[in-house]
Amino acid sequence: MQQIGILGATGYTGEELLRVLARHSGVQLVFATSEQDAGQTLGQVLPQLPAWQNVVLCSAEQAAERKVDLVFLCLPAKDSAKWADIFLAMGRKVIDLGADFRFRSVRDYERWYGEHPCPQYLQDAVYGLPEWRREEIRQAHIVGNPGCYPTAVLLGILPFAQAGWLNEAEIWVDAKSGLSGAGKGLSKSSHFVEANENTTPYKPGRQHRHTGEIEQELSAFGAKQFRLAFCPHLVPMSRGLQASIYARIPDGISKKECLDLLHSRYAGERFVHVLQNHLPESRMALHSNNAFLALEVLPETGQLMIFSAIDNLGKGASWQAVHNMNLMLQFPEETGLL
Amino acid sequence: MQQIGILGATGYTGEELLRVLARHSGVQLVFATSEQDAGQTLGQVLPQLPAWQNVVLCSAEQAAERKVDLVFLCLPAKDSAKWADIFLAMGRKVIDLGADFRFRSVRDYERWYGEHPCPQYLQDAVYGLPEWRREEIRQAHIVGNPGCYPTAVLLGILPFAQAGWLNEAEIWVDAKSGLSGAGKGLSKSSHFVEANENTTPYKPGRQHRHTGEIEQELSAFGAKQFRLAFCPHLVPMSRGLQASIYARIPDGISKKECLDLLHSRYAGERFVHVLQNHLPESRMALHSNNAFLALEVLPETGQLMIFSAIDNLGKGASWQAVHNMNLMLQFPEETGLL
Amino acid sequence: MQQIGILGATGYTGEELLRVLARHSGVQLVFATSEQDAGQTLGQVLPQLPAWQNVVLCSAEQAAERKVDLVFLCLPAKDSAKWADIFLAMGRKVIDLGADFRFRSVRDYERWYGEHPCPQYLQDAVYGLPEWRREEIRQAHIVGNPGCYPTAVLLGILPFAQAGWLNEAEIWVDAKSGLSGAGKGLSKSSHFVEANENTTPYKPGRQHRHTGEIEQELSAFGAKQFRLAFCPHLVPMSRGLQASIYARIPDGISKKECLDLLHSRYAGERFVHVLQNHLPESRMALHSNNAFLALEVLPETGQLMIFSAIDNLGKGASWQAVHNMNLMLQFPEETGLL
Amino acid sequence: MQQIGILGATGYTGEELLRVLARHSGVQLVFATSEQDAGQTLGQVLPQLPAWQNVVLCSAEQAAERKVDLVFLCLPAKDSAKWADIFLAMGRKVIDLGADFRFRSVRDYERWYGEHPCPQYLQDAVYGLPEWRREEIRQAHIVGNPGCYPTAVLLGILPFAQAGWLNEAEIWVDAKSGLSGAGKGLSKSSHFVEANENTTPYKPGRQHRHTGEIEQELSAFGAKQFRLAFCPHLVPMSRGLQASIYARIPDGISKKECLDLLHSRYAGERFVHVLQNHLPESRMALHSNNAFLALEVLPETGQLMIFSAIDNLGKGASWQAVHNMNLMLQFPEETGLL
Repeated sequence: MQQIGILGATGYTGEELLRVLARHSGVQLVFATSEQDAGQTLGQVLPQLPAWQNVVLCSAEQAAERKVDLVFLCLPAKDSAKWADIFLAMGRKVIDLGADFRFRSVRDYERWYGEHPCPQYLQDAVYGLPEWRREEIRQAHIVGNPGCYPTAVLLGILPFAQAGWLNEAEIWVDAKSGLSGAGKGLSKSSHFVEANENTTPYKPGRQHRHTGEIEQELSAFGAKQFRLAFCPHLVPMSRGLQASIYARIPDGISKKECLDLLHSRYAGERFVHVLQNHLPESRMALHSNNAFLALEVLPETGQLMIFSAIDNLGKGASWQAVHNMNLMLQFPEETGLL
Repeated sequence: MQQIGILGATGYTGEELLRVLARHSGVQLVFATSEQDAGQTLGQVLPQLPAWQNVVLCSAEQAAERKVDLVFLCLPAKDSAKWADIFLAMGRKVIDLGADFRFRSVRDYERWYGEHPCPQYLQDAVYGLPEWRREEIRQAHIVGNPGCYPTAVLLGILPFAQAGWLNEAEIWVDAKSGLSGAGKGLSKSSHFVEANENTTPYKPGRQHRHTGEIEQELSAFGAKQFRLAFCPHLVPMSRGLQASIYARIPDGISKKECLDLLHSRYAGERFVHVLQNHLPESRMALHSNNAFLALEVLPETGQLMIFSAIDNLGKGASWQAVHNMNLMLQFPEETGLL
Repeated sequence: MQQIGILGATGYTGEELLRVLARHSGVQLVFATSEQDAGQTLGQVLPQLPAWQNVVLCSAEQAAERKVDLVFLCLPAKDSAKWADIFLAMGRKVIDLGADFRFRSVRDYERWYGEHPCPQYLQDAVYGLPEWRREEIRQAHIVGNPGCYPTAVLLGILPFAQAGWLNEAEIWVDAKSGLSGAGKGLSKSSHFVEANENTTPYKPGRQHRHTGEIEQELSAFGAKQFRLAFCPHLVPMSRGLQASIYARIPDGISKKECLDLLHSRYAGERFVHVLQNHLPESRMALHSNNAFLALEVLPETGQLMIFSAIDNLGKGASWQAVHNMNLMLQFPEETGLL
Repeated sequence: MQQIGILGATGYTGEELLRVLARHSGVQLVFATSEQDAGQTLGQVLPQLPAWQNVVLCSAEQAAERKVDLVFLCLPAKDSAKWADIFLAMGRKVIDLGADFRFRSVRDYERWYGEHPCPQYLQDAVYGLPEWRREEIRQAHIVGNPGCYPTAVLLGILPFAQAGWLNEAEIWVDAKSGLSGAGKGLSKSSHFVEANENTTPYKPGRQHRHTGEIEQELSAFGAKQFRLAFCPHLVPMSRGLQASIYARIPDGISKKECLDLLHSRYAGERFVHVLQNHLPESRMALHSNNAFLALEVLPETGQLMIFSAIDNLGKGASWQAVHNMNLMLQFPEETGLL
């Protein structure tokens, strides 16, 4: 039994993490924190939780005194880094579900999030996309769990980056997400009456912070001089994320070659499913660690369309975090995720 | 008072047409047909209708005996053409909300829909996008009312086609529609449980029939050697349509120049709204003839992103049809549409 | 042309009022206030509004200097009373869409809302349910527009109260409302992710403030010693309200007698529709001043079930307010409401 | 390892059963049938299924040749009985998720469903509500799994029936269900555009077939001369069921006494949760075997309001079926259900 703790357990990603870990045979929950609800039991705050109803929520300060093997951070940007610093110094392993450890370069982080509280860890932190950085994750002390949009996009597009087919290409990403992606915070755009019966593009081009993450990994896996334009959209769902990715590839590449590339890249992967006869719908991936991929090619014009679907709280956040934990703590990869 | 009739009055576009026309001060409903519900009153079939509750639905055959000035066709492809032929021969004006008169070339029609029942009318039929073919519509006997996706897309993109900025460009269209766009017919994809909490891409590339319409009008207004790839998506809304359009434009064109182009093109247009400080949400256009446009430009890379929102049953179907009627019957353009 | 003004024009009821009045042929908008957005135009705050885009929102203080015939109040409880006092003193007519003038007795008001800022008006204010107090409304200077739940419930049940069939009965009201009923304010329960895929009962028994309104009118129209238990529920809709009302009536009364009672009571009413062959769905009433009623009777046991549907922002708020205005300003009753 | 099979595996209850059983440590899937999709793999028909992707769907005839310990029937009424007869004759245990074995009396069954194909089993079949018939289920060869509405209603109301507090009472049940309750079949009422933004009462009074089930169990547990009126409603959710139950109880019983009754009745039950500080929302029970209960009492008038929430596909169907299987096959009760 490994000991784990969660900082920020009552937001959407924290709650989902609790649900997944409750089914995991190899871990014990040592603490769960909540600034707002410290002192209450998990059962009082999240009555629908299937386990750990009697665990009393504590403060992060109290948590820091308990011994654990690994800590999940479900905190706002900057807060994560502050607590990561404390737990890493005590020798704990850390998975941050926020953005503080997703960038390798301080400069990149600063462009999107401002000053970093503990930049010394950035170099050694690992970007936690298991299908692409499995061995690094196994050795990591600190993992930056990918954002929901980048997860959906990168799984679809990295094989093509690696093949060199996206060099000098314009890459257009049109993504659609359910409202839980924006968190539990109250805002006009998450009011039911505003979000329902509505589709809303937001932060188009190079405005959304996930743009930097996508670019970092595209470069890391070999894409050169590409030009990314990204537009997320809110659609009236609680959960689910669908991304459509458009790019021109070199002339003469057939749909079959593209599909073969995807199939061979993900052949051994348990959680990435390449579809051939239908397109991925966001619903397919709900409440799971699965990603679904498919594609279309217009051979006369070299136009490639990649379709990707995940659950923004599943493979796009908490389930992928548990996948990373399994790697870091040497559990069989699929433990608790099927 | 002008006399009008509706063939196929009980589908979604027919019902919406009844709602709009009920507020129109210059027309009288002479007949409304329904194969399925002939003999019943409108009030029995559509109890929520604000007027004409006592009009008895008749068959198309019976309708053909009544004198009218203009007929709306809300019928399946091919059926429309068959009845258009009959009403045109009697000297009635016709607006077809289906696809049978949207194409100028028989060849184009056949590629998407198969053999045409009365190709002799295609040459003189007018594509009913008022902002772009106002004078032709005024003179027309037969108007092909545009599809919902083409309406949203063309309003956003034609100014750029006309400016010559899309020549040799790849144009990517990512559109999201509510379920009423697919009609009242029962199918797995329109079952509530399948459509709810789901986003579904379908018919990507050059598979959806609206592709041909978009290409015809892009060419007609000057775009040369463009390469269109189109992907519609179903999102869980009853109504509403949002399209995001992506293309590279020549180097050195600023966002301001693009906005100026849109503004000047639509300066006098009552129903097209160019937004500057926020992006069009599909909800803005509900229950109206309005279209909302905005754009983003990445100046370093020449990447243009156009955002468009309409109501698929409003500007995307029945409200635009009434706009066309106003032009054809010489009413003030806005009658019944505000 | 009559001059009107709106205090609190940018909440849901204010916005809906603007939409309805924009189609009204007999009124001119002299002012629209907003504390938060004063200084901006209506077009900036509500870009989807079909008219009055250039009207500049002002403060309530500024509004009080402008001459109008009638003022609509869409303000929080207590605020309404404060401003009503000011406008009534200047001789304006007032329709309050809030609760401050719905009660005849100060005592009743105080039980639900606390101290009343200007109780002297309560005696002369009229409860604005046109089908039941038409003549009083015509003479009124101040009208308390009914709550959404009471509107749906009272239309269904008052005929039975008047017939004396509810004396000494237990009356159970189970109502389901869309989220706009709770206003634009941000709260956990109106967050999309909380409200979506969820049905939530709240404030059961005698907790919801609308209980008092229903009881007042039941008594006013003759029900004696009834025992009301009321439970509202939130269902995942933006708009719409469905109420199911259950009570035992005296033995031997048939379904036909009950239906006859409803039919004869509402025979001349343009906005109340008694259905015979299907039950009222909330969707029927959307964007209208209509109410739909139907019923079921279990003759062996005297169990009566009444079903009612309205749009909470339509007949349940802003459309009914315009109906009241038409009566107070001597317009034909249906002006702007069809 | 016990061997199990599913007849009708591709409907909503069948698919949910597969999902739950995939996590069950003690069973092996020997067959899954589908009339429509026989010959295809589960992976082709239900790509989102977490396991058994390679199981080939077979016909019911083929299934009858395979050896199993227990069979789940997810078939239309009458079909269930026909296949139950065949499997029981071969000594298999059977759980029918349909209505064919819910009634003890042939007369009762016939009133709601018409002639029964094998009435000889009715006497020995057990109504599968584990909290109320645990020991009988353990001994049963054939279990009729309760309907979704009866499950929610009976859990809330049986303690009061047993206490004798509902004798001679009128009992009003107002239930709200998501659309999956009506199955995968296509109908106008399940079309997204009809169901979305809508609340629809249907089959009020004594029309819905679940009325008989509720009455049978109320009587079985001691309620005398009660008068049940039941009205289900469709609300725009995929899953989830909320029931509000209203009845007058004898004078002088306090809310505390009612709550104590619920608490003591369900003290040892793992899946029934009595809430004290908030009301059950349907969302709480999603994807689980949980039921949530709460109540309100108006002490002056003896009016009792009971609130119940389940997942119609969870405790209301497939999860409860697995609970029953655990009892029949002597697994620990909670196996696979946490």
